[in-house]
Amino acid sequence: MTTTYVSTSPRPSELPRVSLAVKGTERVVIESVTPSVDCGRYPIKRALGGRVDVGADIFKDGHDLISARIVYCHADDRADRVAPLEFEFNPDRWFGSFRPDALGRWQYGVEAWPDPIRTWSVELRKRVEAGQDTAPELLEGARLLRIASARPDGGGGARQQLLDVAARLEATSAPIYERLSLALSDVWHESASGPLRPEDVARFAPMLGLVVDREEAAFAVWYELFPRSQTASSKRHGTFADVERRLPELASLGFDVIYLPPIHPIGRDHRKGKNNALKAAPDDVGSPWAIGAREGGHAAVHPELGTVDDFVRLVRAAKEFGMEIAIDFALQCAPDHPWVKEHPEWFFVRVDGSVRYAENPPKKYEDIYPLNLWCADREALWDACRDLLLYWAARGVRSFRVDNPHTKPLAFWEWVIAEVQRAYPDVVFLSEAFTRPKRMKTLSKLGFSQSYTYFTWKNTKEDLVEYLTELTQTEMTEYFRPNFFANTPDILHEYLQTGGRPAFRARLLLAGTLAPVYGLYSGYELCEHTPLHPGSEEYLNSEKYQIVVRDWNAPGNIKQDVARLNRIRRENPALQRLDNLTFLETDSDEILAFAKRAYGNEIIVVVNLDPHRVHETMVDVPGVLLGLEPGSVYQVFDLMSGERYQWQAGENYVRLDPLEKPGHLFRIERS
Amino acid sequence: MTTTYVSTSPRPSELPRVSLAVKGTERVVIESVTPSVDCGRYPIKRALGGRVDVGADIFKDGHDLISARIVYCHADDRADRVAPLEFEFNPDRWFGSFRPDALGRWQYGVEAWPDPIRTWSVELRKRVEAGQDTAPELLEGARLLRIASARPDGGGGARQQLLDVAARLEATSAPIYERLSLALSDVWHESASGPLRPEDVARFAPMLGLVVDREEAAFAVWYELFPRSQTASSKRHGTFADVERRLPELASLGFDVIYLPPIHPIGRDHRKGKNNALKAAPDDVGSPWAIGAREGGHAAVHPELGTVDDFVRLVRAAKEFGMEIAIDFALQCAPDHPWVKEHPEWFFVRVDGSVRYAENPPKKYEDIYPLNLWCADREALWDACRDLLLYWAARGVRSFRVDNPHTKPLAFWEWVIAEVQRAYPDVVFLSEAFTRPKRMKTLSKLGFSQSYTYFTWKNTKEDLVEYLTELTQTEMTEYFRPNFFANTPDILHEYLQTGGRPAFRARLLLAGTLAPVYGLYSGYELCEHTPLHPGSEEYLNSEKYQIVVRDWNAPGNIKQDVARLNRIRRENPALQRLDNLTFLETDSDEILAFAKRAYGNEIIVVVNLDPHRVHETMVDVPGVLLGLEPGSVYQVFDLMSGERYQWQAGENYVRLDPLEKPGHLFRIERS
Repeated sequence: MTTTYVSTSPRPSELPRVSLAVKGTERVVIESVTPSVDCGRYPIKRALGGRVDVGADIFKDGHDLISARIVYCHADDRADRVAPLEFEFNPDRWFGSFRPDALGRWQYGVEAWPDPIRTWSVELRKRVEAGQDTAPELLEGARLLRIASARPDGGGGARQQLLDVAARLEATSAPIYERLSLALSDVWHESASGPLRPEDVARFAPMLGLVVDREEAAFAVWYELFPRSQTASSKRHGTFADVERRLPELASLGFDVIYLPPIHPIGRDHRKGKNNALKAAPDDVGSPWAIGAREGGHAAVHPELGTVDDFVRLVRAAKEFGMEIAIDFALQCAPDHPWVKEHPEWFFVRVDGSVRYAENPPKKYEDIYPLNLWCADREALWDACRDLLLYWAARGVRSFRVDNPHTKPLAFWEWVIAEVQRAYPDVVFLSEAFTRPKRMKTLSKLGFSQSYTYFTWKNTKEDLVEYLTELTQTEMTEYFRPNFFANTPDILHEYLQTGGRPAFRARLLLAGTLAPVYGLYSGYELCEHTPLHPGSEEYLNSEKYQIVVRDWNAPGNIKQDVARLNRIRRENPALQRLDNLTFLETDSDEILAFAKRAYGNEIIVVVNLDPHRVHETMVDVPGVLLGLEPGSVYQVFDLMSGERYQWQAGENYVRLDPLEKPGHLFRIERS
Repeated sequence: MTTTYVSTSPRPSELPRVSLAVKGTERVVIESVTPSVDCGRYPIKRALGGRVDVGADIFKDGHDLISARIVYCHADDRADRVAPLEFEFNPDRWFGSFRPDALGRWQYGVEAWPDPIRTWSVELRKRVEAGQDTAPELLEGARLLRIASARPDGGGGARQQLLDVAARLEATSAPIYERLSLALSDVWHESASGPLRPEDVARFAPMLGLVVDREEAAFAVWYELFPRSQTASSKRHGTFADVERRLPELASLGFDVIYLPPIHPIGRDHRKGKNNALKAAPDDVGSPWAIGAREGGHAAVHPELGTVDDFVRLVRAAKEFGMEIAIDFALQCAPDHPWVKEHPEWFFVRVDGSVRYAENPPKKYEDIYPLNLWCADREALWDACRDLLLYWAARGVRSFRVDNPHTKPLAFWEWVIAEVQRAYPDVVFLSEAFTRPKRMKTLSKLGFSQSYTYFTWKNTKEDLVEYLTELTQTEMTEYFRPNFFANTPDILHEYLQTGGRPAFRARLLLAGTLAPVYGLYSGYELCEHTPLHPGSEEYLNSEKYQIVVRDWNAPGNIKQDVARLNRIRRENPALQRLDNLTFLETDSDEILAFAKRAYGNEIIVVVNLDPHRVHETMVDVPGVLLGLEPGSVYQVFDLMSGERYQWQAGENYVRLDPLEKPGHLFRIERS
């Protein structure tokens, strides 16, 4: 049994135009099954080990009792699995859960049926209590049990037990109290459970989709570095071997995923120079996103970085350190990419027959040729793009950072991610789409495991609270996994440009505690903060266009913060979840405070958002949040600084000097 | 072309279990189309003349422009109709509307496609403004227009115009400014609009359902009377002719629908006596809901009321007065109903073969045999039930009050209502289900045109505000039309029992202004308020079991209130809608105030909920509600009392003495 993930939108001509109303056969109505994204059009997501909590409204006519269950299956399962659903009178709804135990695509749904045996049992008790004649009811019960015994799935022991009970209920020669006692006992209930007839079962439609990813999709720290910069001199191009040499340090800092910008040959035609200059100097190395040259395209590696074998060695070495290498999947070509000559039909072609470079009129990007993923030969082109992902997956890559996915067809991503995960269900796709919120959300719904976010631009308390509330308290938690990069080669926010080391420390603390997945682009740990020009979010002398040599131990670095934070994250389950965030009231607009709890682990974070000034405030920790009476005291232990305070359920004083520390990362310790 | 209203829930064995992901062909994604009830599982409702406001999220990859439209059709249409959708940048969503022009079942949906011609046109303008070479773009535009001209639906003039424009854009001998001027003009836009190729069109699935009822389904006053009580003496059984004689008065009071409890022969077996006595006296008339006797069943009329012809005459007479007769559809049988003998297989049968009377253990209802609508012969039984409705519809009945529909299968109602409305799209079904809120809602979703409500039990300000907010401000407005009966033969609320005439006047005013459809059970206008016993909501000497003779002009009657209110309702469009309710702040818990507005008609209602005491308060009418600066003055005219006051945007003083009047029904009059 496998699962469908095709678009559910039929062509107009295929729309059902059935004529007559039909006599429905469903005795039970099932409504509002949750979780569900866009009416089941898109799957929800879980990390392996995660739980799916299911809810449903279920009812029928009259007073008869209903039974219901969750049905679910992995795409490879040959039969449905089931999990119980229990009724709660308030809010008149059924609840249950299941825990998928394998990576990949799942389906789940709800089944329900009228339960005449349980109804009979409950009514019999009422009749007995009212002193009514129950003899006919015992015969009615026997009749129902005989029907139940005849079910094809009522195998062996259960069947015989039901027949035995039925015979004893029918034994009019036996004393009525003996028969009643048997009827009212629950020894046979297990055997009698389940639908009496298959046609009694209603199933909610459609079945809902679920994608289970490995745990690292939902909890990880990313680090972006340019391999060519892993060198001691800008005269020597860094290599995969250089990256390998940096692995011990990166592992000690607590990173999980080392993300490399495109590693492919870099185009020479219209190559950009330093600081995005229109003309490159002869020794300029170019932008790695100008992919493809005579040495090859997306399946080749830039010769100066090494060979494909060197890359595979790096992937294996990272694994030794418990880390992995992520690469960039940027579906665009430099003018000298081999595909431009081999497959001009895969590109946009002008009326004069020439291949069209990227444009957003009046802007021109002559160094980039976009692929036309709706070209006449799209089947072959889509296959070729998929094969690139499979090629690198076969070489050990399990995480792809996808460049600008919103500029390629949504249908392409839905297809290609499903295709790749069918072969490699542990592959993680990170969407680098900075576009309108709804398009970003839909990319996640369609299949991206993680997404870049607006986090870098959310620097005020109001903005952070509003954005994090949306990310953590809405339906988005079902499908959207934010990856809070604190900076990227494209985004050096003014807050970091002007806030100095305290700003970098504060944003690190926020990224690492607000989101279970976050990332740093190298240089962050050195507090690099010089923009191309005032008002720009680009870096001066950006690594996108040149080799940047760094002293990784330069004074003022915040590597100790990074290592400590990442260790704390691993040790505290509360920091590994997205949906457990509760903001705490403070009376300062510059101090953000929040709590996160999971499995008895209780974290309180208090951050001074102002990198320039000392702020103090009262932080309100409601007793109800901790299950404590107002005024009850407990210890808070700052996992970053080692400080310890006595706090209470209620208001607590905090003073934060940005030159000293960006905030507190408290664990609550109850005596 | 017709429409499907079958259950969308496939049997488990029919569930799609397709294997491979497929390369989707949809270039545009359409999401979150509204209005939609339960993901399109159920239709929305409108009254004829009402508008459907459609919203949708639509996007594609990249920068290309999108075009979109509403598609909709009546079940009898042979082709789709279209209505425009326009994009609003904030909230990044498309909006449009259509107005269905016929009764019955409709479908609607959203189509969208990439619009390369509009994209080209917009980009050309940018290129011109940037002073770029546009010669190749003119050729590209010509190419697109030639494709557009080849569309099968691009008939006659449009096709020729596009070919002409294309030729002129291609005319390289002509001055470039002439060709640009033509390219940038909009004279040919209309001809070029629409999808370039049919396969470019994405359509949201599923198509959504809409039921259009006649206006009276959404705006009417009901009046329930027992025909047998339309007599001057309890010795003489009232008749249809007696009802006919009351029509002029009922019309003058402003009623639209005269609803008669079951008019069929009343069972003699286990007949209930006065005040629900287990044994009837020989002259007891019995409950009309014990349907069926030797004289016939649901297709017969009780001989003492007259003949079927007399009934038809009454229906016609009512029509003369602009009113209609509603009858009761109670699917249950007295033990002497002909079906019990003719079709014992349609009932529940005990193990001993006897027909089972109604029970809710330990309670027994030996005068009622419920039908087993899931019996083996259900196809025939469902047909027979439908045919009863068709029988009375053929005799002019267009409104059925359905007794206890929640005790019959939900699937039955979905089927039978669709069947009857296919033949008689003007038939209105009123659901008399007092059950858990979700079951009541689903009956409405499945097809009931109107529903009884909890209104009789909502007597405090808090309860009224909460309940009306749910009814008027949530998704319920799409499918649930409340019918606010102020009393019924089963419900005489304690508020009315103890509140005297002021209570009856207050509840009348509330029912008639809060809900566009409301009703009174006869006796209400006489303020009848004696319960069976203290604590009971049943009437003493209930008309359900005996003939009740009344003096319709008894002192203290509130007929003037009724007539005036109903006239005001007809003259003020604001009182004819459900979803236009805004509660106003008052500083008294006993004074409820609200505003309703429609088509420039502005109503403010202020009601003293305490029937025993004078209350005064300030009513806050926010200026923003009226589009007035705070403090601006206007006149309010009490349509019930004729009083006139000067009010302001902001706080206004009100004092209400229940002995004088229950409240104000103001129309705002702007100078």
